[in-house]
Amino acid sequence: MANKADLEKGLELRKKLLGKRASAVTALRELAPDLEEIMNEVLFGRVWTRPGLEPKMRSAITIASLMAMQRLPQLKGHIANGLNMGLSKQEIIEILIHIAFYAGVPTAVNAFQLAKEVFQENEK
Amino acid sequence: MANKADLEKGLELRKKLLGKRASAVTALRELAPDLEEIMNEVLFGRVWTRPGLEPKMRSAITIASLMAMQRLPQLKGHIANGLNMGLSKQEIIEILIHIAFYAGVPTAVNAFQLAKEVFQENEK
Amino acid sequence: MANKADLEKGLELRKKLLGKRASAVTALRELAPDLEEIMNEVLFGRVWTRPGLEPKMRSAITIASLMAMQRLPQLKGHIANGLNMGLSKQEIIEILIHIAFYAGVPTAVNAFQLAKEVFQENEK
Amino acid sequence: MANKADLEKGLELRKKLLGKRASAVTALRELAPDLEEIMNEVLFGRVWTRPGLEPKMRSAITIASLMAMQRLPQLKGHIANGLNMGLSKQEIIEILIHIAFYAGVPTAVNAFQLAKEVFQENEK
Amino acid sequence: MANKADLEKGLELRKKLLGKRASAVTALRELAPDLEEIMNEVLFGRVWTRPGLEPKMRSAITIASLMAMQRLPQLKGHIANGLNMGLSKQEIIEILIHIAFYAGVPTAVNAFQLAKEVFQENEK
Amino acid sequence: MANKADLEKGLELRKKLLGKRASAVTALRELAPDLEEIMNEVLFGRVWTRPGLEPKMRSAITIASLMAMQRLPQLKGHIANGLNMGLSKQEIIEILIHIAFYAGVPTAVNAFQLAKEVFQENEK
Repeated sequence: MANKADLEKGLELRKKLLGKRASAVTALRELAPDLEEIMNEVLFGRVWTRPGLEPKMRSAITIASLMAMQRLPQLKGHIANGLNMGLSKQEIIEILIHIAFYAGVPTAVNAFQLAKEVFQENEK
Repeated sequence: MANKADLEKGLELRKKLLGKRASAVTALRELAPDLEEIMNEVLFGRVWTRPGLEPKMRSAITIASLMAMQRLPQLKGHIANGLNMGLSKQEIIEILIHIAFYAGVPTAVNAFQLAKEVFQENEK
Repeated sequence: MANKADLEKGLELRKKLLGKRASAVTALRELAPDLEEIMNEVLFGRVWTRPGLEPKMRSAITIASLMAMQRLPQLKGHIANGLNMGLSKQEIIEILIHIAFYAGVPTAVNAFQLAKEVFQENEK
Repeated sequence: MANKADLEKGLELRKKLLGKRASAVTALRELAPDLEEIMNEVLFGRVWTRPGLEPKMRSAITIASLMAMQRLPQLKGHIANGLNMGLSKQEIIEILIHIAFYAGVPTAVNAFQLAKEVFQENEK
Repeated sequence: MANKADLEKGLELRKKLLGKRASAVTALRELAPDLEEIMNEVLFGRVWTRPGLEPKMRSAITIASLMAMQRLPQLKGHIANGLNMGLSKQEIIEILIHIAFYAGVPTAVNAFQLAKEVFQENEK
Repeated sequence: MANKADLEKGLELRKKLLGKRASAVTALRELAPDLEEIMNEVLFGRVWTRPGLEPKMRSAITIASLMAMQRLPQLKGHIANGLNMGLSKQEIIEILIHIAFYAGVPTAVNAFQLAKEVFQENEK
């Protein structure tokens, strides 16, 4: 059973991440509302809001891990989230350059394609 | 052909990363000195030293990507490097907790085992 | 050289997996008919038909492994296959929720998107 | 904040998984007790205990996903857990044979090595 | 700072790889020209041109590694590159059949789809 | 049911791969003799022996894919196999250097460690 206070903290954090964009997890929400509640309560409400690491740093490490694993739709989402959490475009570009050497050049080629799309959508 | 100035910057950066520890890439150095030179010149000399992202942040994203891909010997090395680049133990722990949700709980169990080893070796 | 009896058992099993759908391995069949024959004979004829594990359980573990590795076109195919092998929609949803914690939340977001598509195509 | 009832359900489920063995997550427990509590409450208390999939099936899909991702220490643990949740040795062997074709032969060679160790430790 | 001679060697090698096709790394070039320069100078200028392995063999191992990791856009690109470096269609097909057993059948199904597209585009 | 002629061809090929070394798949052989037979008949008897790609090239692409996926015990085995199939030490080193850029520097550090061990064991 979810903890209401954590759930609300999570929903609030998630709004900040998404900014003006709509959430991309509609299929998960529809088929597995329990898992979405767990995500909102635990991942966004109890983990992202922990004081030990500033939100901007959390965005940076999330981007790095998603690029390394090539979870491409989520990587695109978190590049956009990163701009909402205080990362500049240049900082995001630096993260992608840096991880290219640890995860291989092809992971960077794909990541820059997504970053370009996010930056263009953001300018509209 | 290597650029001498970048190579020297890279060797200097690498010393900071390693602190009192010895490098763990002895087999690579022995069998492929050209690749080690490229790493020192390019990865450490031209990328890690770029001004767009502070070294502490570079350590954090390196740890996140290595945990996500489960490159365990390198993860252990960069947890130790992270302490030398300004990350506190608590910040490293926060990174590992955070990435657990993006890369799966098993990746965190292994990462905490390595972090414990590094923290113990560091206290000696 | 293929064993005819195993090949026939494999083709029969594969028909059950696919139900009304067409096979998605047309490029493999066209460019590498030998590999498709090996798949039909060995994977479908000698492995899927082994008595030690019921077909429904084989579908469940196939879905879990494909989600974990993010082989997305095959995951979609085997979610559809699973419905033909006796897994209910709710059981497939449970598999996806469960593996989310072992392979990371992003793997689940992608898997639920595919499950939604399969469930919709199935209702037509 | 953890839900006490879920936490207790999770600890109980975890005892069943482990049987006579000690838990292998001591480093995580020591460095990140909050994450261990989340795992106990959410993964073991709210997910593993869901009625939609019997525990034996949950063990089977966990083994399949860990083999596919080659999370080896966790794979070894969950092969042992599987025996406690009702999977027979022969069923575990069937899972490993089946996934070999989806995740590649090398993943099976490593998995059978771990299964052999578990089966031997279990006979003592 | 880039070494001019290596950069030129790299650009020349890259032209051979691409043949009549346009480069697919436009987003990387636009957002991170420094990383593209490093790729051209180091990966294409200092590594691909090393005498210890003939270019055709380098194409073959690149295809094998990209298939194994399922970096699909890059796999498609390097299947096309392979034809320009002296691999025959039949040799590329053999590589894909061979790696299927090491990386799993699903990786081959996706790879053959891309190979079919490349071979068709090549016939125009 | 296995094809005897393919099985014998496979066992012969496997002997060439292993040279003086003992096979490392003892646990698989013991727990799943059917899967080992399939491997011997199909992977070694029907695939490795196909005429379309010379054995030395097959060794090279196997090493590249195992390094990319970090299947470390198998990578070590196939580095040793490669020496038996006609790859020189220097060619193996070139493969590892080349793949470092596609799969990330950490995969190379681990691969060179294994190559060093193989080369030393080979000199005894």
